[in-house]
Amino acid sequence: MNAYHKLTKEDVEYLKSITAPERVYFEEEIEYDYHHDEMPDFGTFPPEVVVLALSTEEVSAVMKYAWENNIPVTPRGAGTGLAGGCVPLYGGILLSLEKMNKILEWNLDNMTVVVEPGVLVMELANAAIEQGVFYPPEPGEKTASIGGNVMTNAGGMKAVGYGVTRSYVVDMEAVMPDGSVMQFGSNVVKNTSGYDVKDLIIGSEGTLCIATKLRMRVITQPKYSNTLLVPYGSLEECLGTVPKFIRSDLNPAAIEYMPHSLIEEAAKYLNKIMPHRTANSYLILMFDGQTEEDVERRCDEAAKICLESGAEDVFLCNTDERKDAVWTVRGSALEALKASSPDMDECDIVVPRNRIVDFSHFADQLMEKYGIRISIQGHAGDGNMHIQLMKDDMDKELFLKRGPLLMNELYEKAKELDGQVSGEHGIGHARVEALENHMGDRMITLYRAIKNAFDEKNILNPGKIIRLK
Amino acid sequence: MNAYHKLTKEDVEYLKSITAPERVYFEEEIEYDYHHDEMPDFGTFPPEVVVLALSTEEVSAVMKYAWENNIPVTPRGAGTGLAGGCVPLYGGILLSLEKMNKILEWNLDNMTVVVEPGVLVMELANAAIEQGVFYPPEPGEKTASIGGNVMTNAGGMKAVGYGVTRSYVVDMEAVMPDGSVMQFGSNVVKNTSGYDVKDLIIGSEGTLCIATKLRMRVITQPKYSNTLLVPYGSLEECLGTVPKFIRSDLNPAAIEYMPHSLIEEAAKYLNKIMPHRTANSYLILMFDGQTEEDVERRCDEAAKICLESGAEDVFLCNTDERKDAVWTVRGSALEALKASSPDMDECDIVVPRNRIVDFSHFADQLMEKYGIRISIQGHAGDGNMHIQLMKDDMDKELFLKRGPLLMNELYEKAKELDGQVSGEHGIGHARVEALENHMGDRMITLYRAIKNAFDEKNILNPGKIIRLK
Repeated sequence: MNAYHKLTKEDVEYLKSITAPERVYFEEEIEYDYHHDEMPDFGTFPPEVVVLALSTEEVSAVMKYAWENNIPVTPRGAGTGLAGGCVPLYGGILLSLEKMNKILEWNLDNMTVVVEPGVLVMELANAAIEQGVFYPPEPGEKTASIGGNVMTNAGGMKAVGYGVTRSYVVDMEAVMPDGSVMQFGSNVVKNTSGYDVKDLIIGSEGTLCIATKLRMRVITQPKYSNTLLVPYGSLEECLGTVPKFIRSDLNPAAIEYMPHSLIEEAAKYLNKIMPHRTANSYLILMFDGQTEEDVERRCDEAAKICLESGAEDVFLCNTDERKDAVWTVRGSALEALKASSPDMDECDIVVPRNRIVDFSHFADQLMEKYGIRISIQGHAGDGNMHIQLMKDDMDKELFLKRGPLLMNELYEKAKELDGQVSGEHGIGHARVEALENHMGDRMITLYRAIKNAFDEKNILNPGKIIRLK
Repeated sequence: MNAYHKLTKEDVEYLKSITAPERVYFEEEIEYDYHHDEMPDFGTFPPEVVVLALSTEEVSAVMKYAWENNIPVTPRGAGTGLAGGCVPLYGGILLSLEKMNKILEWNLDNMTVVVEPGVLVMELANAAIEQGVFYPPEPGEKTASIGGNVMTNAGGMKAVGYGVTRSYVVDMEAVMPDGSVMQFGSNVVKNTSGYDVKDLIIGSEGTLCIATKLRMRVITQPKYSNTLLVPYGSLEECLGTVPKFIRSDLNPAAIEYMPHSLIEEAAKYLNKIMPHRTANSYLILMFDGQTEEDVERRCDEAAKICLESGAEDVFLCNTDERKDAVWTVRGSALEALKASSPDMDECDIVVPRNRIVDFSHFADQLMEKYGIRISIQGHAGDGNMHIQLMKDDMDKELFLKRGPLLMNELYEKAKELDGQVSGEHGIGHARVEALENHMGDRMITLYRAIKNAFDEKNILNPGKIIRLK
C-alpha cells in the first residue's frame, strides 16, 4: 500500500499558484457533490482538495506536482458515472475537467471536431446538428462529459447501428501521470505506426492518463428516421427476433428491449401516452436512412420479421410526438426505477445477444430465491442489459446482505454465458471484485503491469479497475 | 543487449518432442523463404530453427521453453509483410503458424467466425461468401494470413467504406511470452470490463503475444456493386474531389487514386483493356448496396460530384468484365512496379486525406532533387499512399545512399502534415528509426514500458517496432 502524501495548506497554496485561487477548493469549501457520482449507494469519498483545471498546461502542472509529491489524483468529468470511477477513494486531489468545456475546431473536410473533455455529450450532439453533421453515440445520460464517455467507452441506444464511443475517437492529447503531454492516435483514417495506445486508453477510466483534448469523428446526418414499437406475448419471442435483425441487411440504428412492468412504470412516471403498453415484452426499433423510400422499405421488412416471429402487432411511430413518447419512456427507465424504491443496486452485464433469454430466466429464478425485485431492460441489439435490484420495502440491512450475493450469482452466470462484467458503465471501484473473479489472476497481473507502464507511482485514480495492492 | 541462448541440438530435440519431428527444421533444412518477407531488400535473417505449430498447446509449450531458456521467438504467418515484421532479426526460433489454418466455427446468429491465425485472407473471404455473408477487409495481398492482418491491422482498398481489420476482430485467444494462454476482448458487442488489451495487441506486430484463435465479425453481403473510373486532367482536381465524398451521404466502399504512369504500366503489364488510360490522374470509386436503385442513385450523384469537380468523364463499370479490368489493374500496381525496376524501396505513409495533394507535390520536388523515380498511388479515401522509390538504372550504391535520405524527407513531411509513418504495412524492423524520429523519446519510453508489461525478457519478436536496447 502506497503511503500517499496528505495535502497541507502549503500544497493548496502551490496548487492555487499554478491554476487560480478561485478554482481550488479546500476542506469546507468542497461541495458534497464532489464526494460521489450518480451511485452514492457505492459509498461517498471526500477529496482533500478540488482543482478545476482550465487548460492542458494546468493539468500538466498539477500532475507534475502530484507525481513529485506522491499525491493521488482523481480526474472527474461531469460526475455522472455509475461505478464510482470518478470518486477520490484515497482523498488527494480531485481534478475536475468540467470547465474545459469548449468545442475547439470543426474540420468538415475530414469530418472531425476537436473538443475539450468537459464538453457535454448533448452539447456536442447539438453542435453537430448545427454543422449539418451527426455525432451518433447516445448514452442514456446526456449530461455526461465527452471525456467521461471516452474513458468508459460509453455505448448507449444506438450502439448496434452506429458503434460505441470508441468508434468516434480519432486522436487525443493527454497528460501522463508524470505530467508529460502526449498525443495518442492520429488524425488519419488508417494507422499502423507503433502501439495503439489510444485504444488502450479508451475505456481505461482515467487510470492511465488524463485526456485534455479529443478529436472526434462525425458522420453524415441521416435524413429520415422511423421508430417501431413492437409488443410480444412472451420474452422468448421478443428476444428471439433480435438475431434475425443482426443477420438481415436492415441495419437498425437501435434495438431496445423493455418488459411490460418497466414500460408501464416509466409511462406512468412521465405521464406519457404510449401507443401500446399491455403486452408482456416490447422491442423498440429505430431505422435511419438517407431516403424516405429506403427507411420505409426497411421498416416494412422489419415489421414482417417481427410478425413472423410472433409479435402481437407493430406500431409505426413516424410522427415526432409518437417517436418522442416512445424514446422518452425508454430513456427514463432508470429515473422511473429510482423513484420507485428508496434504494437500489445496479449492474450492466453484457452477454452474446443470443443468450439474453437464458440470462433473463436465470434472473427470474434469483428474484424468487432472494425475494428481491429485479428489473432488466436494455440494449437487446448488443446483449447489454441494465439490471437493477430494488430494495423496495425490504429491510436495508437484509438488502445490503442479500444484494451482493444475488449480484455475484448474476456475474457468474454472465461468465458462464460467455458474457462480461460491464457493457458500458465500467468497473470503477464498485466492480473491482467482480472483475477479479471474472478475469482471473494472470489477467489482473497483466492489468497491473500495464497500469505500471503508465503510472509506476500509482497516483492516478488509484483503486479503480484494479485495487491498490 | 540481451544475451540470448543459442540453440543446441538438445534444444531442437526438445522442441521436436513437444511438437513433431517433421515440423521442426534445423540448420540446412531451413528454406531460404523463412529468412525474409516480401521485402528482402530490407535484409535477410536466418532463423536457428523453424517450428511449424499445429495448436495453441504447442505454441504455449514452445513459448514456455523459450521463456525459461531466453530464446528469441519470431512468430510468422504467411510471410507476406512489407516491413520485415516476421523476420528473425536475432535468430532463435521462427514459430510459423501457417499450418494453424482451419476455419473453426461459424455463428451467424452473432455474425462471427472463429479462425486459426494461418487462414489466408482470401480463404476467409471466400468461405464467408459460401455462408452468404461478407468479410470486407481486402488488403492488396490476398495470400496474407488473418493472423498477420490482425497483427498489422491491415487496411486495403475498402477501408474507407468498411473500416480496417481492427473493426472485424471480436476477440482472440493468445499465448503470452511466458506461455500463458489468455483470452482478450470478448464475444459481446459492447465491453468496458477492464483494459482494452485486445486493441493494444491489434497492430502490435507479434511483439506482445501470439494470437492462436481469432473470432472475426462478418457482415451482410451487399447485393449490388458498381465501379466508376474517373479520369482527371490534374492531380489537384482528382484529389480535390475526395473530401466531397467524405462529406456526402454516398458512402463509397473504396476511393482509390492512380496516376497516369501507373495505370499505363499496370495495364500494359497485365495486358488488360481499360475503359480509359490517357488522363493525368484517375479516381476509382466503388459503391456497394442492398438495392439496385440505391447503388444507381449513389453512382449518379457521385458522377455529378466528379464532373462538377473537373473530371473529364465518368466511366460506369457495371459489367463483371469491366469491373475486373479496373480492379485487377489497381491491384497489380505493386507487382507491375516491381517488374519495372531491378530494385526498389517503399513506404506507406498516411496523411489527413485533405493533405494528399501537398504531399504529392513535395514528392515531385524530391524526385527532381534526388533523380529517383517515385511512384505514388493508393487509398485516396483514407489518405494512405503507397510510395515506391524505383532504382531503375541508377547505380545500386548510389540508390542505397540517396534512397534513405529521400525517404527521411518524406517522413518529415508526413509529420509536418499531421500524418503517420505507416498506414497499414507496419513498422517491422525496417521503419524503427522513422518511428523513433516521428514519435520522440517520451513515446518510445512508453512503448518500451508497454512491451515490458507483456515481455520483460524481451524474447518475443525482438527488435520490431522498438529496437532492442
